[in-house]
Parts: sequence; C-alpha cells; structure tokens
Amino acid sequence: MPLNRTQSDSSEEIKPETNSNTIEIIPVSGLPIITQGDNLAQLILRTMKKKRQEIKKGDIVAIAHTVVSIAEGKLVQSTDVNVSPKAERLALLNERKPQKIQTALNEACEIIREEPVLITRTKHGLITDMSGVDESNAPEGYYVLLPEDPDKSANEISRLLSQMYGFEVPVIIADTQGRPWRRGAVNLAIGVAGMSPFAVNAGQRDLFNRQLKSSLVCIADELAAASELVMGQADEGIPVAIIRGVIWTYSGEVARDILRSDTENLF
Amino acid sequence: MPLNRTQSDSSEEIKPETNSNTIEIIPVSGLPIITQGDNLAQLILRTMKKKRQEIKKGDIVAIAHTVVSIAEGKLVQSTDVNVSPKAERLALLNERKPQKIQTALNEACEIIREEPVLITRTKHGLITDMSGVDESNAPEGYYVLLPEDPDKSANEISRLLSQMYGFEVPVIIADTQGRPWRRGAVNLAIGVAGMSPFAVNAGQRDLFNRQLKSSLVCIADELAAASELVMGQADEGIPVAIIRGVIWTYSGEVARDILRSDTENLF
Repeated sequence: MPLNRTQSDSSEEIKPETNSNTIEIIPVSGLPIITQGDNLAQLILRTMKKKRQEIKKGDIVAIAHTVVSIAEGKLVQSTDVNVSPKAERLALLNERKPQKIQTALNEACEIIREEPVLITRTKHGLITDMSGVDESNAPEGYYVLLPEDPDKSANEISRLLSQMYGFEVPVIIADTQGRPWRRGAVNLAIGVAGMSPFAVNAGQRDLFNRQLKSSLVCIADELAAASELVMGQADEGIPVAIIRGVIWTYSGEVARDILRSDTENLF
Repeated sequence: MPLNRTQSDSSEEIKPETNSNTIEIIPVSGLPIITQGDNLAQLILRTMKKKRQEIKKGDIVAIAHTVVSIAEGKLVQSTDVNVSPKAERLALLNERKPQKIQTALNEACEIIREEPVLITRTKHGLITDMSGVDESNAPEGYYVLLPEDPDKSANEISRLLSQMYGFEVPVIIADTQGRPWRRGAVNLAIGVAGMSPFAVNAGQRDLFNRQLKSSLVCIADELAAASELVMGQADEGIPVAIIRGVIWTYSGEVARDILRSDTENLF
C-alpha cells in the first residue's frame, strides 16, 4: 500500500485485519484542549498510547472539524468583527448575534436563504447554515470557522499518521450540518484523505443471488454520520473516533468531489 | 422499561450494557430469502440463534426496507403495469423502463423533477428518486415499493422482538437515497419505532468544559447510515444489522417526524 498517495493509482480494496464483519466505532477520549499550532496527528497518537488504544491497518480516523480549525488558527474574535447594516438586519431576523452573522457572511460566496436561518454556499462549495461558523467548542469570545481547505487538512493529518504507523491511515473531517427537508443535523464529510469517499456496490449479489447494478454510495458521509454517534453522546467533548472494520478503496477523489455542480444537482 | 409503548411517556436514557464506549455495527447474515407473509422478527431471531448471535438490551435493529416491503407483499409485477403516455415520455428522458417509471408515478403524490432523474414526493412525504421503487432485491420481473407505512412496520417488528426478548428493541427501517447537492446515496431512516429518532445534545460539555447549547441531531439517520456500512460491503445480501452501544431515549416520535413541512423547509 503506497504511502505516497500522489503517485498512487491503486484502487485495490483494503480489507480490515479482523475475522469478524462487525464494524467498530471507537471514541478517542482524553485529548488535551487543542490550541493554534497543535499537531493533531501527534496528539491523537499520544492520547491513544496513554489509553493503550492503537490505530490498526485498515482503520479510518474521523475528526470533528472544530479541532482541525482551532489547530489551524481559523478563529475570529467576536470583538474584531466589523458589523455591516445587512448583518444587523439579518441578526434580528435570525435572532443571532450580529457579529456571528457577519462572520458567516464573510465566509459565504453565495446567500441561499436569509431567514429564519442564514443558509449560504461557503467558499468551499458547501451549502450549510451560518457558513459553518460555530461558537461551541471555541475559546470564549471566539467563533470557529471551517478549515480553509478541509481536504488539504485531512491529507496533512493522514500523511503524518501514515508516516507514524507505516501504513495508510485515511482521515475524514466531519461537520454537523442541517439538511433540506429533514429535521435534525447529521455529521457529513467535509474533508477526506487516503480513501475514496465513495463505494461502488458493484459485483455483489443481491438477496436473490443476482448481480446487482452498480450503485454509488457515499461512504465518507456514512462514516462521518457513524462517528457522530460516539462524538455526540459523550459527556465530555470527543472530537476523534476510530472506525474499524470497513472495506475501503483509494480513488484519488476527495470530499470536494462529493459536491454536485449546480447543473448536476438533481433535486 | 415499559413494553407497551403507547402508554409510555418515559424519556429516560437507555444506556447500553457494556463498559466500553465503543459502538458496534453487527451484520446479521444468513437470513433466508424473504417472501410475502414472512414474520421478519421471528426470522431475525431464528437466524441469529443459529449463528449464536443475540440481541442485547439497548441494541437497535436496523433493517433494509426491501425485505420489509417484500414480507408485506409491496411488490408490483412489471407486466401488470399499465403504462401511460407520460410514463413513456419520461422513460425516454430518464433512460428507464416505462413500467418502472409508471410504478414510480403511481407511488408519487407530487413530481419534484421529471428528468434526467424522476424525483417525487411519495405518499409517505419522502422526497426521493423513482419514489423509492427498487428492482434489485426483488423477485425477477417485480418492482419493490416502499412499505405502506414504514413507521407502522417498524413498530410491529419492534413489538414482536420486544415480546420475544422481554425488553424494548428499537427498530429502524432504512432506505438508500440520493441527496440534493451531494453525490452518492446514503441510508436514511424511513421507519422508526421504540426510540426517539432524535438526540438532543444538551447538558453536555464542550471541549472547553462549557455547557453546550442544545442541538438536535437526527441519530436515526446516523444509525441508518452506519448500518449501510455493513449492509453494503457484504458479498451476500445483508438486510439486517444490530447496532450496539448507542445511548437512546424514547420520545414517541417516529420517522415521519423527521420530515420537515414545506413551511419548515430551511433550504
């Protein structure tokens, strides 16, 4: 399995080193408070060692974007924000602080909806509420933005973890986002490295032992969703989960490839 | 924990009977081919016993809708379908069989988009492509429809499993659906019984040990997504997965409550 992904065009299936077909989602607890400049890969390794946990070949590491953003310094101090009249107006309609609305506007390249919830298309192409600007898990008085380039962030963490372990460690950066038509947020993959975000369910047989038509499944989003189950239910903040037992391939595609272009949008 | 859910208003948290915080997604393999009239709860119990698997207190059972639909006889023989001129026209635009398009039209209460993929709002209120009509996992020459009332189906299977085991066994019925703006399908919950589809991440502390503002997470969709990871990657058809280690509550809400009304739709 080549560690230098840029030279790799392998699409070989990576099967987990386990006999059972059970998938495990393992929370990594006890990480220190992340601050700007932190090396997340190193902190994950160190924290897991302390707890006698390890990353095994085939494991996927899911990380909440907030800690990635904080490590990268993607923070805005609310008192530094110059609030425009538009942000003042939207703040009233959204019942949000004008500084937070302005920060969301600064991160947007298109406004999809102004109220009762500000929905934008971010610089990354993500369509999400408040441009993904987050107050929880930020230092007091700060807003956390999305990472500048979540695929690049995932790639850097994946590269470091793969070097440390001597095998490819795929990384997914997750963000909790609302959805059209469905209540309740779910975790989605906004950064992917080291594995294809997609699985093609082809060559498999259905319940009647017939060859199935191939269908494209976004396993990166399913993995992100699965990781939220351990991240969200903890009493303490759990920003990292290890997912064990999933078969994945490498395709060179990243989280940006999950986004449909406007002409491709089917709904 | 009351088994008679209709009289229950308990919102007590059900914590899994395990020390670890790891979540397991366990495939149930070896189910027989499902046919109309089958008792799925009984078949799940019997199959698991054979494999020395068991459902433990706190476990959630995720089931692919196709086997539920087939057991309920929600099948249409393609030669029985009267194709309208509209279906003929859309079949050309969608490169699909006119019989399948007509079946999708019959299941729709509103057409959202006609081509290149037929997207409808189904009788259940779901917005999905081809009204959820499925050819794979159906007997040759038949189309599988969505269950008539997936929440009711989930409730019946949950009721039977709970009776057999003597504790509440929540059931999620899942369907693989496409999404707006994002490529690749993911599993979503279309039927839920015995647990709240939502988790309120309230009363928890963030990475800075501050009380988080409550946020609504749709864990039913996250559980459905997680179950696809074992259903989709198997060489054989795996229509059932056991999810162990998730904390859930009971609220009386079902999968229909996940759907936003049109006025509530934020995007």
